[in-house]
Amino acid sequence: MTKILNDAEDFATTALAGFANVYSRYVHLVRGGVIRSTRVPRGKVSVIVGGGSGHYPAFAGYVGPGMADAAVAGEIFASPSTAAIARVCRKAEQGGGILLGFGNYAGDVLNFGVAAERLRAEGIDVRIVTVTDDVASAPADRQIQRRGIAGDFMVFKIAGAVAEAGMSLAEVEYVTRHANARTMSLGVAFGGCTLPGSKEPLFTIPTGRMAVGLGIHGEPGIQERGLVSATELSTLLVDTLLKERPAGGKQAAVLLNGLGATKYEELFVLWNIVEKTLGSHDVEIVGAEVGEFVTSLDMQGCSLTIMWLDDELERLWLAPCDTPIFRRGETFPTERIDAAPKDEDEAPIYPPSSEASKRDATCLAVLFDAIVDALENAEQELGLMDAHAGDGDHGQGMRRGATAAKEAFHTAVASGAGAKSALAAAGDAWADRAGGTSGAIWGLLLRSWSGALSDADRLNASVIAKGARAAADDVTRIGGAKIGDKTLVDALVPFVDALEKNLSEGQPLSKAWSAAATVAQAAAEATAPLSPRLGRARPLAERSIGHPDPGAISLALIAKNIATRLSK
Amino acid sequence: MTKILNDAEDFATTALAGFANVYSRYVHLVRGGVIRSTRVPRGKVSVIVGGGSGHYPAFAGYVGPGMADAAVAGEIFASPSTAAIARVCRKAEQGGGILLGFGNYAGDVLNFGVAAERLRAEGIDVRIVTVTDDVASAPADRQIQRRGIAGDFMVFKIAGAVAEAGMSLAEVEYVTRHANARTMSLGVAFGGCTLPGSKEPLFTIPTGRMAVGLGIHGEPGIQERGLVSATELSTLLVDTLLKERPAGGKQAAVLLNGLGATKYEELFVLWNIVEKTLGSHDVEIVGAEVGEFVTSLDMQGCSLTIMWLDDELERLWLAPCDTPIFRRGETFPTERIDAAPKDEDEAPIYPPSSEASKRDATCLAVLFDAIVDALENAEQELGLMDAHAGDGDHGQGMRRGATAAKEAFHTAVASGAGAKSALAAAGDAWADRAGGTSGAIWGLLLRSWSGALSDADRLNASVIAKGARAAADDVTRIGGAKIGDKTLVDALVPFVDALEKNLSEGQPLSKAWSAAATVAQAAAEATAPLSPRLGRARPLAERSIGHPDPGAISLALIAKNIATRLSK
Repeated sequence: MTKILNDAEDFATTALAGFANVYSRYVHLVRGGVIRSTRVPRGKVSVIVGGGSGHYPAFAGYVGPGMADAAVAGEIFASPSTAAIARVCRKAEQGGGILLGFGNYAGDVLNFGVAAERLRAEGIDVRIVTVTDDVASAPADRQIQRRGIAGDFMVFKIAGAVAEAGMSLAEVEYVTRHANARTMSLGVAFGGCTLPGSKEPLFTIPTGRMAVGLGIHGEPGIQERGLVSATELSTLLVDTLLKERPAGGKQAAVLLNGLGATKYEELFVLWNIVEKTLGSHDVEIVGAEVGEFVTSLDMQGCSLTIMWLDDELERLWLAPCDTPIFRRGETFPTERIDAAPKDEDEAPIYPPSSEASKRDATCLAVLFDAIVDALENAEQELGLMDAHAGDGDHGQGMRRGATAAKEAFHTAVASGAGAKSALAAAGDAWADRAGGTSGAIWGLLLRSWSGALSDADRLNASVIAKGARAAADDVTRIGGAKIGDKTLVDALVPFVDALEKNLSEGQPLSKAWSAAATVAQAAAEATAPLSPRLGRARPLAERSIGHPDPGAISLALIAKNIATRLSK
Repeated sequence: MTKILNDAEDFATTALAGFANVYSRYVHLVRGGVIRSTRVPRGKVSVIVGGGSGHYPAFAGYVGPGMADAAVAGEIFASPSTAAIARVCRKAEQGGGILLGFGNYAGDVLNFGVAAERLRAEGIDVRIVTVTDDVASAPADRQIQRRGIAGDFMVFKIAGAVAEAGMSLAEVEYVTRHANARTMSLGVAFGGCTLPGSKEPLFTIPTGRMAVGLGIHGEPGIQERGLVSATELSTLLVDTLLKERPAGGKQAAVLLNGLGATKYEELFVLWNIVEKTLGSHDVEIVGAEVGEFVTSLDMQGCSLTIMWLDDELERLWLAPCDTPIFRRGETFPTERIDAAPKDEDEAPIYPPSSEASKRDATCLAVLFDAIVDALENAEQELGLMDAHAGDGDHGQGMRRGATAAKEAFHTAVASGAGAKSALAAAGDAWADRAGGTSGAIWGLLLRSWSGALSDADRLNASVIAKGARAAADDVTRIGGAKIGDKTLVDALVPFVDALEKNLSEGQPLSKAWSAAATVAQAAAEATAPLSPRLGRARPLAERSIGHPDPGAISLALIAKNIATRLSK
């Protein structure tokens, strides 16, 4: 567990700053990430990677000639915010367009996806490749649903090599997708990891057992079984991966990755056997790598990744590369850029607003106090609820996001913003500061809701209902969850349905809202599953039985606290 | 703890083989170590480093252009044997002489020292630099008594750079000593490490506490205290090291080293503060490194090392270097050597022997059965005894060494060796296979004893007494321990005294030996200390109270079992 820290809250950003200081010859620190500190040819495709922190050297350690141009870093195990992704991209972009690479996780898909849309709206060509190498997370015929683990490193290495060769964005995208399609991993874990500031590990594996196919944040795998010898472990990993050997697959790039607390000596012992096991199956290993490439804090375990090479992939895999944690071949002639690009002036300018809308905004500000109060009181409980199925940081993220939203709202009101602009600013702040999936969802929810409002006209019940419907629609559409998926949507949609119905029946807002909040509460509690729902691994899957979804509960809690404030 | 292994017995050698396979572009595996697999200019000084295993990337990871020419690897936390060191040196030597670099530990000093003597006898110029950077292990005015920890990496980097520049052996030795004198480290540990195959950690640190100045094998430190914030930890490390800042010391190479289970993110968090703390003391950091450079299996903790630079050291510290785990600057033009040098024909040739001496040898062979029996039965108990003060591998090492000695003796007898040659061969095998301090001591003991014997004349009581005295003298002189130091010497010297006296009084051998064995037994038991003797750290120091020295107990046990066999 983490022993060196000042404040768990700023652990990830401090670690990134320390990294950037040590490796200043490779990177400049910018808000939310790092970009190369050496000159990049104008017009080169920018390969920008990222995800949550806690996976060092993923992803900041990959930045340098021959690999990534920039990396975006979220909080520990949480996706970076849309705003952070867009910000880092703008600083790294060189006129050749951007390839965004990240592992396939809901929060990252959402945040990188929305960031890509924003950048495209600004005239930057952005393509996305999500890495989907973990064979334990979905069957071969649903490869696009698989999550990304240590394959990230290999796929990004290929992307970086194609971009460095001066190929077009379309070519970089094509080859990177091709590389991802030919990359498969399987991992095992012997012990759980502990979040900075936590006393207990995120999950545990009983002594003498191992979890096969466990994800890099403790997501469930295929099975739990007794520990085996290094030879049996090699057979398990190799045999599983060879089931997806493509026709004619012979040359393979191979990566044996340690998750954090499994030491190099152990990896080398295993490698000594894996190398022979692969050889006995007539696999020709090219450029093997053994070490820590995608970790999971101090998790005990390892994964084996195979990328099946063709001539082009082999050339790209072996191409020179010079990053803080991985060097291959000749060094690059580099020209250092002394200063990081300045942060653009981020003091927002609000559109003109009417006095009426300003007064509405001042009234709405009070509601943000209610939201923050609700979440501060419930932070610990929400965290515990989340720990049953997720990584236990839901309460922390919600409190952080809501506080930032409240501050942004107050700032906007003080700067003369109308209700629409102030609410939009609050949404952006929430997403930016909370990070992760719930941050992105709440940012989207507030921003969509604000779309129905105005900076000129008075706020009324009908506008509020329209905003609520827009929020529910966008969250459902862009977030990709539907009712019954046991997410915030399970509470949001019934809430909006009830609010709309109550208002259409002529109920006053405070009564209509209050009744809808009660509906949301019941719906949120009904998300408590009665049987395992997260996969086949035990005891991980069982932890969520009987516990409601914390996202849905948060929403109901916020709705209820606003109802109380409205009734005053 | 170690989860990936087949057999704890061959863990270290298998890990080394796996390492050499992955990094075959840098190294060839040879028996007991690795040597560069790229051509080295004829006449260049060879920098050869080494020590126990379990410290990856120390020491095999340091081999490559700009740093080491070869690394010798012992068993986990145990010095490599004299024979292994000499063998690896012979393979790496290029006619320019050898600088041997290792951390200051008794076993390494003994084995590298004896190996150097053997190589010098063969006409190879060998110099030794022991690294003594750990300020917690002795005061500044006794720097040469300090043990070596993460400073190893920095001192070896300097040695490699001087040698690569084509300087003479004398110059390499001089500059390396100079670098060592200006290198200081202090470490802290938060949790103990576990030996492969063990279920329990070698030592523990209570929750919420940290051990300041702990060595890389769990040796005691300065104090145990409560965990502190990252900022306080930075102050503690920096302030302690700055106490030994040399006059005019301004430029400093700095290394923040992780011990194994303390993750990179934590190291970067700490670095972010250390960098500022050093800056506030007007220290100018040159080429900082943060990461795992000298580990201790899965120990939790870190150390800070400062090497105070002058112009020459600064140039050498920043000089290009290309090893499996550390690359700096431009790459080297390298020419690969496809095959490792063949192991020399090691089938020993024995000098001619008389039939009488052959018969004596056959009789002596039975005694080795007694030795192995004794140690096999006592292996676990000796291990437990050792765990109170050391790393718990004494029983294992003794059994391994004795078994190898027995086999070597039988082989020698079968090949027609006389008593003297067979006993010498047994001693060499013991040292080679057991490793560590006890292996070296037993190798020396048997070899010295054999010096009194003959391959021609019959064995008699006077020859045996002469051999015993020679063994006791050499072990005391070369091993550097005297009576009262609580080592094997405490039992060996009284045993030899008694044997000599009993034989001189005309007692028959079996009776004289038996009585001497009883004396040895009592002396061994008397090594149980009544108060802490290992330093000032708790609870480590207290563990040895009331427990006898396992080396002395082993000797008594062997003497007793031989007595039983002699009386038959």
